[in-house]
Amino acid sequence: MKKLAVVGLVSAALFGAATYSIAVQRDSDSALLREARKYFQPLPKEIPAPPDNPTTKEKVELGKMLYYDPRLSLSGVISCNTCHNLATYGVDNIETSLGHDFKTGGKNAPTVLNAGFQIAQFWDGRAKDLEEQAKGPILNPVEMAMPSPELVVERLKSIDEYVKAFKKAFPQDKDPVTYDNVAKAIAAFERTLVTPSRFDEFLRGNTKALTQKEKEGLKLFMEKGCVACHNGVDVGGNMFQKFGIYKPYPYQDPNDLGRYNVTKNEADKYVYKVPSLRNVTRTYPYFHDGKVWDLREAVKIMGETQLGITLTEEEIDKIVAFLDSLTGRIPENALKLPVLPPSSPNTPKPQK
Amino acid sequence: MKKLAVVGLVSAALFGAATYSIAVQRDSDSALLREARKYFQPLPKEIPAPPDNPTTKEKVELGKMLYYDPRLSLSGVISCNTCHNLATYGVDNIETSLGHDFKTGGKNAPTVLNAGFQIAQFWDGRAKDLEEQAKGPILNPVEMAMPSPELVVERLKSIDEYVKAFKKAFPQDKDPVTYDNVAKAIAAFERTLVTPSRFDEFLRGNTKALTQKEKEGLKLFMEKGCVACHNGVDVGGNMFQKFGIYKPYPYQDPNDLGRYNVTKNEADKYVYKVPSLRNVTRTYPYFHDGKVWDLREAVKIMGETQLGITLTEEEIDKIVAFLDSLTGRIPENALKLPVLPPSSPNTPKPQK
Repeated sequence: MKKLAVVGLVSAALFGAATYSIAVQRDSDSALLREARKYFQPLPKEIPAPPDNPTTKEKVELGKMLYYDPRLSLSGVISCNTCHNLATYGVDNIETSLGHDFKTGGKNAPTVLNAGFQIAQFWDGRAKDLEEQAKGPILNPVEMAMPSPELVVERLKSIDEYVKAFKKAFPQDKDPVTYDNVAKAIAAFERTLVTPSRFDEFLRGNTKALTQKEKEGLKLFMEKGCVACHNGVDVGGNMFQKFGIYKPYPYQDPNDLGRYNVTKNEADKYVYKVPSLRNVTRTYPYFHDGKVWDLREAVKIMGETQLGITLTEEEIDKIVAFLDSLTGRIPENALKLPVLPPSSPNTPKPQK
Repeated sequence: MKKLAVVGLVSAALFGAATYSIAVQRDSDSALLREARKYFQPLPKEIPAPPDNPTTKEKVELGKMLYYDPRLSLSGVISCNTCHNLATYGVDNIETSLGHDFKTGGKNAPTVLNAGFQIAQFWDGRAKDLEEQAKGPILNPVEMAMPSPELVVERLKSIDEYVKAFKKAFPQDKDPVTYDNVAKAIAAFERTLVTPSRFDEFLRGNTKALTQKEKEGLKLFMEKGCVACHNGVDVGGNMFQKFGIYKPYPYQDPNDLGRYNVTKNEADKYVYKVPSLRNVTRTYPYFHDGKVWDLREAVKIMGETQLGITLTEEEIDKIVAFLDSLTGRIPENALKLPVLPPSSPNTPKPQK
């Protein structure tokens, strides 16, 4: 009887402790969720479209064909997907992309995934939206190198199936195969490139979606101040910031002036768009110049240059764990390679 | 009453004529099918595998990842799919492919679709099978430009998910990540690249699968003698032939010696593998040098150089119509872009 009473007491105590610990965990989880919701929002299903380019099924399917079609390049070999490869999370995983004639531009290719949530496109924000962005690389001599929008349109107009697809995607237009509509269709496709991850489940209220270590990483991410720039649905992508606030970015090319090229404001020298951290474990190498390959080094540099702090190895560990919870699922339809319509004998030929 | 009798007679006559015409059509269809079956066989579901590389699901999935992975190239940008693009029927639709540093080789990239049915690989047949073929382009300095098999293996071994996938695909092997196994996995994937078309339905007995014009084209294709070389499951691909039997191929580069490079037999100068005509309407430009873009011109040249005949425009029309019935369906799984495993900080970097 005595023994039994002791056992009873001990189990009551243990039970109490367990209950207490679950309650504490629940409280701290709710507190963390409450805090996180101040800074972040879960990804919606689709990126909101501008009024003059509503997303339709027909436009998305056309845009996907164009996205994967190497005939949008002079050589006939480079497609949007070459540098923004959906097999590798919308990037090419090299420092700076290899374009026409294996030439390189000056910037690391940013991921196309969730790109439409951002305030502007390109590292210097020179394109206001996805439509404007899409028109850039096709005509850039070191990228897809098309000499003119007219040649793009001529190629597409010579392909029956494209003419039909443009008519379906732009039923109001008298002359639907235009360079503007190429950009509109690609942008419509890109607005479907949303990659929900475990972090979104967490933000929606399932606190079990993150591991303990990831939660500690999220807490640090907020406490240390990373969240001052990396916030919103895209965990970044909604402001410009000087790179090198507390000390210069160690690999900075002094001639790469960033947003200054767009605004000509002295204050915009070495200012870049804050990148989204969605899928960041897959979008190496890092920064506007692609000079850093290791995410741990990138986090360390960010602490030093942007926050003026030195993160411990353990802190970096936890932050990197949290960042991995941002790795999402690429929509299945986007990964289904379209079979492209054949050229005709009139299609202007590829040129080297 | 008289009128009624006349109507009766006329309809009886008409009915008789229709029955007669259906019967004739049926007879001529069966005759055509009987004749066609002498030369052609419908595509099996999968290409037979050699005893030392049986096709398994695990190997196919690994092979598909490798096929789409640009890390098999030195630059980190060129994958098998770059030149053998499954979005464009396993070819790149340019004269000769653009490889490392935008260099070009001397031959037009043949389609990878149904390739494993053929007697040998490459235009000169220098590789005996898909396994041997797959090892070529990865190390070719003007293609994927890897300096050594060792670097390929080093890259793959540094990627955890690949190490696991090789273990699953080659469970008997002590050291499964090898260059030989890279080739075996890619070959296993390629053995699934079979593209049945309406012509196969016809060969299986459904004579309605071809239009009247296509049937006339098929008849001409047999009568004119095209079928002497273009026969079997692949409508080609099972022998070598001199290009320019009756007169020289007009665009022949005299220094391109074809199969002579493999055998060193005088008789093998300007001899090439007879290409498969499966999906030929999509695999332009034509011939070993990719000099001819228009299928009508290609058919005309074949008549003149190989058969010593001049085909009329109408005959060319019909033959081209038949050839289009060889355009098949690419397997859905092959078109589903795999999400590739991430590199690690130890992965040897891409080099320009």
